[in-house]
Amino acid sequence: MSEVYAVRRERVKERCAAGGGAVALISRPVNVRYLAGTAPQGAVLLVGGDEDVLLCGRPPGEQAEEGRPDEALRTRLLPAAGADPAVAAAGLAAAQGVESLAVEEHHLTVARHRALGSVAPGLRLVDLGGAVEQLRYVKDEEEISCLRVAAEIADQALGELLESILVGRTERHLALELERRLVDHGADGPAFPTSVGTGPNSGKGAHRPSDRRVEEGDFLSVCLGASYRGYRCEIGRTFVIGTSPADWQIELHDLVFAAQRAGREALLPGAACRDVDHAARHVLDSAGYADGLPPLTGHGVGLEIDEDPQLAPSAMGKLDACVPVTVEPGVHLPGRGGVRIDDTLVVRPEADGGPELLTITTKELLAL
Amino acid sequence: MSEVYAVRRERVKERCAAGGGAVALISRPVNVRYLAGTAPQGAVLLVGGDEDVLLCGRPPGEQAEEGRPDEALRTRLLPAAGADPAVAAAGLAAAQGVESLAVEEHHLTVARHRALGSVAPGLRLVDLGGAVEQLRYVKDEEEISCLRVAAEIADQALGELLESILVGRTERHLALELERRLVDHGADGPAFPTSVGTGPNSGKGAHRPSDRRVEEGDFLSVCLGASYRGYRCEIGRTFVIGTSPADWQIELHDLVFAAQRAGREALLPGAACRDVDHAARHVLDSAGYADGLPPLTGHGVGLEIDEDPQLAPSAMGKLDACVPVTVEPGVHLPGRGGVRIDDTLVVRPEADGGPELLTITTKELLAL
Repeated sequence: MSEVYAVRRERVKERCAAGGGAVALISRPVNVRYLAGTAPQGAVLLVGGDEDVLLCGRPPGEQAEEGRPDEALRTRLLPAAGADPAVAAAGLAAAQGVESLAVEEHHLTVARHRALGSVAPGLRLVDLGGAVEQLRYVKDEEEISCLRVAAEIADQALGELLESILVGRTERHLALELERRLVDHGADGPAFPTSVGTGPNSGKGAHRPSDRRVEEGDFLSVCLGASYRGYRCEIGRTFVIGTSPADWQIELHDLVFAAQRAGREALLPGAACRDVDHAARHVLDSAGYADGLPPLTGHGVGLEIDEDPQLAPSAMGKLDACVPVTVEPGVHLPGRGGVRIDDTLVVRPEADGGPELLTITTKELLAL
Repeated sequence: MSEVYAVRRERVKERCAAGGGAVALISRPVNVRYLAGTAPQGAVLLVGGDEDVLLCGRPPGEQAEEGRPDEALRTRLLPAAGADPAVAAAGLAAAQGVESLAVEEHHLTVARHRALGSVAPGLRLVDLGGAVEQLRYVKDEEEISCLRVAAEIADQALGELLESILVGRTERHLALELERRLVDHGADGPAFPTSVGTGPNSGKGAHRPSDRRVEEGDFLSVCLGASYRGYRCEIGRTFVIGTSPADWQIELHDLVFAAQRAGREALLPGAACRDVDHAARHVLDSAGYADGLPPLTGHGVGLEIDEDPQLAPSAMGKLDACVPVTVEPGVHLPGRGGVRIDDTLVVRPEADGGPELLTITTKELLAL
């Protein structure tokens, strides 16, 4: 695994070389993790100097989610408790005679950036921008296999919930049980706060579980995800409680299912992100649900649960093979509830069979 | 409750007036919450212009932890999805003829700060620094009563765990059960990831629960906290599993207990934070445990689980009445385990009986 990180750091150096030969200071934790493997909280990575160095405010391994940083990487533990590793890295770069340091201006605060400047006045601070996020956009098969495991775990946790008694239990308890089951099946933890919405709360994006109890005839919508070795997936389903769904529930579920399928079928290498969004959104628009639709119908997943690309009307950019995304259209009718269907898929060329569905729990309108 | 927020915003305006009459842009979420009540994710607060305005990227209430923002506050929902409320606030300030805008440079990233500057070139951006954090340092009785409830919830969850069978269960499961019980008893959720350490893992600060199972003769150390209406408390205890603790366990527990008591007894208005730390640390130092002690022996709590003051050797500043802090010394012996004892207290003058203990679960070395 170690050489994977070295290769990733090489690509950062290539970006820097193309951008005028700066040394890069990676401070955004998820980017440090991508380039160094697990790292202690607050650690920063200096790439492209005399050697790549991971600067840590606390001992490696002590608080890392799992394992230790890439052994091929020199790590330096700061002596002073509370010292800012980014400031120490700037000092180290200056001591190595580095002239310009590329920093993550979308992560560093103004205050920290000033501290870097004052510890190394001769150092020119330039913007690395989202260079590491861009490297993270297309996943390797190692990363995709972590997402696949994460999706299996989420499917298992959801499947077990469906077999249990639901009527009378609160949204809060169902969410907690799902999170416990995620961990039981080997997740690091939930990929994001599990959302359980019943009755009028169903179909809302990112609904925070309340004390409302499941009732006969309710829509029940669940959105959960597992984090496995840091990789995060997402699955959302909507069911009905009791034996026979009402007509409006069947119609709404059919509609959202059709929108979600249209989105999934639009996932191909080279497809414009906005076109994928349009494919799903158009189905809901033309059924008269244009108002109150969520701003996104999907997003990338990986080390973050919400990363590039965005599937939205104004999104720029195109999809690539090996980019994992969610497709999650939904409709919520205030006071009545709604439907949300959410899968995690990996974009694959048609020659390879098209999009790879990671979350395989059925999308039928089950009556529980 | 509404006037509480108005009064807090008045105090921000006084700071700004003293600092040259800037209008303040509050972007740090916990500070926005302090001044506006609950607010949607990403909302920012403009204080001291024509009127105080809460600028939101999404509808108020939709994702707020509970309730809605202060009704006395004008809220403005941004039309464009994904627009940065801080940038919109800068534009609004400029449109009001504001000359200088005080921003939270310890929170705004370099990239966002630049975006503010470019949307309002005529606007002088100055640093508000930690002005709101300073206001948050001393709590009002309303805030303290939330902390008191949070502590009661944590005591209840811990008390129930002690009555259950522990041998053979994993750290992970005990942590999850504690978090479920916190929610059962009315917590918003855990104040921080619950830490359960058994055997060699006991007594570590912020130990991430593993799959190790509780065994006879183990030390079991637990650190948990509840969040109630956003206010976060912390309690940590160490127990022994089985009937008779070993001598070294009794001695180590007595020592940490003595250090923790010394720290608690040093909590008085006007006491230097470093002296409180020294009171606890000295007991451990003089017993030969100088090495490997945690950098802090306590910290402030409130809307954040770790806020000012810090109880550390190099900490500046003094305590005040109505400042809630933790006192949490610990000793961990690599390979053997250790003891950590952690309370949340409120600093009170001696005339009022001295420090108010919020977490009341016994600190004896119980054999479970």
